Amino acid sequence: MYSLSALEDLLNQAFGKLRFDGQPKELYEPIEYTLGLGGKRIRPLLVLTGCDLFGGDPEKAIPVAIGMELFHNFTLLHDDIMDQAPLRRGKETVYKKWNTPSAILSGDTLFALAYESILRGGSPVYPDLLQLFTRTAREVCEGQQMDLNFERMQQIAIPDYLEMIRLKTAVLLACSLKAGALLAGAPSEEARKIYAAGENLGMAFQLQDDLLDTYGEEKKFGKEIGGDIISGKKTYLYLSAMLGSGEEDAAALTGYYRDAVTDPADKIRKVKEIFDRAGVKESTLNLISDYFNDALNLVRQTAVPEPGKMNLLELATRLIRRDV
Amino acid sequence: MYSLSALEDLLNQAFGKLRFDGQPKELYEPIEYTLGLGGKRIRPLLVLTGCDLFGGDPEKAIPVAIGMELFHNFTLLHDDIMDQAPLRRGKETVYKKWNTPSAILSGDTLFALAYESILRGGSPVYPDLLQLFTRTAREVCEGQQMDLNFERMQQIAIPDYLEMIRLKTAVLLACSLKAGALLAGAPSEEARKIYAAGENLGMAFQLQDDLLDTYGEEKKFGKEIGGDIISGKKTYLYLSAMLGSGEEDAAALTGYYRDAVTDPADKIRKVKEIFDRAGVKESTLNLISDYFNDALNLVRQTAVPEPGKMNLLELATRLIRRDV
Repeated sequence: MYSLSALEDLLNQAFGKLRFDGQPKELYEPIEYTLGLGGKRIRPLLVLTGCDLFGGDPEKAIPVAIGMELFHNFTLLHDDIMDQAPLRRGKETVYKKWNTPSAILSGDTLFALAYESILRGGSPVYPDLLQLFTRTAREVCEGQQMDLNFERMQQIAIPDYLEMIRLKTAVLLACSLKAGALLAGAPSEEARKIYAAGENLGMAFQLQDDLLDTYGEEKKFGKEIGGDIISGKKTYLYLSAMLGSGEEDAAALTGYYRDAVTDPADKIRKVKEIFDRAGVKESTLNLISDYFNDALNLVRQTAVPEPGKMNLLELATRLIRRDV
Repeated sequence: MYSLSALEDLLNQAFGKLRFDGQPKELYEPIEYTLGLGGKRIRPLLVLTGCDLFGGDPEKAIPVAIGMELFHNFTLLHDDIMDQAPLRRGKETVYKKWNTPSAILSGDTLFALAYESILRGGSPVYPDLLQLFTRTAREVCEGQQMDLNFERMQQIAIPDYLEMIRLKTAVLLACSLKAGALLAGAPSEEARKIYAAGENLGMAFQLQDDLLDTYGEEKKFGKEIGGDIISGKKTYLYLSAMLGSGEEDAAALTGYYRDAVTDPADKIRKVKEIFDRAGVKESTLNLISDYFNDALNLVRQTAVPEPGKMNLLELATRLIRRDV
């Protein structure tokens, strides 16, 4: 059984050696740039952890772990075009630094490179692993489309919002954890449980991200606080505030999210006042806690030995706390 | 051994039954639309032919054949954004009819659906087939990037142009033929030869496309004649005209390809005069013929029984004549 930091060391070594210096360079430079921006490498860590939990050799899971990160970066490249995001991890996004065709094509290449890496490492469990990964890839696209649809919608039901973040975020975390388990030869019932645990953890992770965007500390969170409020993103916080507010607050909130922003700090302050009155922080924390507990219960039901369960708990806690 | 038209019947049935009615509909409608535009389904036909040649059951190759067509349509969706093409097969392109995010995301989904289809059909030869397909996918991206680079370049060496069309077009035809052969259990040396034959055929196919764009009959070609000249696309015809012309014609040609178009018909006529003086039609026909003969020689060297060789010859001839 490896410690989390030992698994992270393995990943750091592997990513440190990774090079994409193919031709034409116009295709591979944006890929090198994107991967060079770093990131928390949560998905690869979940692959190695999933493998380690079931007694597999995490070193052998590295190509699959890298594949998950390449896929994740493919989605970032394309999402940034669709969302017209100027910055990613504090640096210019690829479509801004190069152009849209570059970001499309380097993204497509990353998708292919993800499969190349997974194929390199998944040999004994090809069909299961590849079917899982491919279905997940399609689901992530479905989640992004739902997210795009929501931008144009006035009313979104909370279950629809939760389904969107499940598809857009949670399934890839679940897939990463299960891919590791499959590589270790976990029985299918165990792999199923670990997938469900990963999915619940992914939900908690995304809701925590939504929460920190409004209630986090800028330094720890790593991006500006209030971004979702300014851009009018209808997250769980907004949706539950709409449900939990009286007529007056609900009308005011609708206005804030619809109208152009003149004074950002003032808008953030006023929206937070409505959120506070509606008890949004508490209800979000409760929901996060529900998902987190469901994840832990599922882990408890697996045959993973006790030290493995503790490892996963540590990773889960770090995911939610965002110290990873 | 199936006749080509019997294989086409199989494909027509399979594509007729194909539905992409998943959710959210905003993601799947552009996919249905794109596949509904038809197309010649050359790549699926190559898969079934490759399978039939080596004594496999073409019906079992259908999911892989569909996968190649889905992948091809993925590239069209994204290429149309990059090339800002308003029309595809006489209808509005997806990014025009919907928008760029839709075309990106539906394209990405088609890429995943291609893998889903291939995984459904390729079970006994997963690693070889998937590695071939994945490498091909990456190469097609490299070819598209070279094509984009060439737009901004004044001078392109003919070998670089040929490498571009090899990557952008020929490798997917070769991959389709070889995928069929692999599904039929062809020995690796045979599969290698059939791949090389497909690659040469793909080169002939693309050069013929370039030739028809300038020298074809509009009715048979299915798109406007002279499109490459109007858009200033530096195809083999242009590059060999530059090589085969005197100083005066070369300077005039450079001007025609650089300057804005005022009178399209006049430009086409004048460029064709220069092409004619440089003997471009003949040199292109010679090159097509070289690739075609190389393809046939490679087919001859395989252990495919005589009726199979005749089938492939028939398909190859139709590909070049564009009656498919």
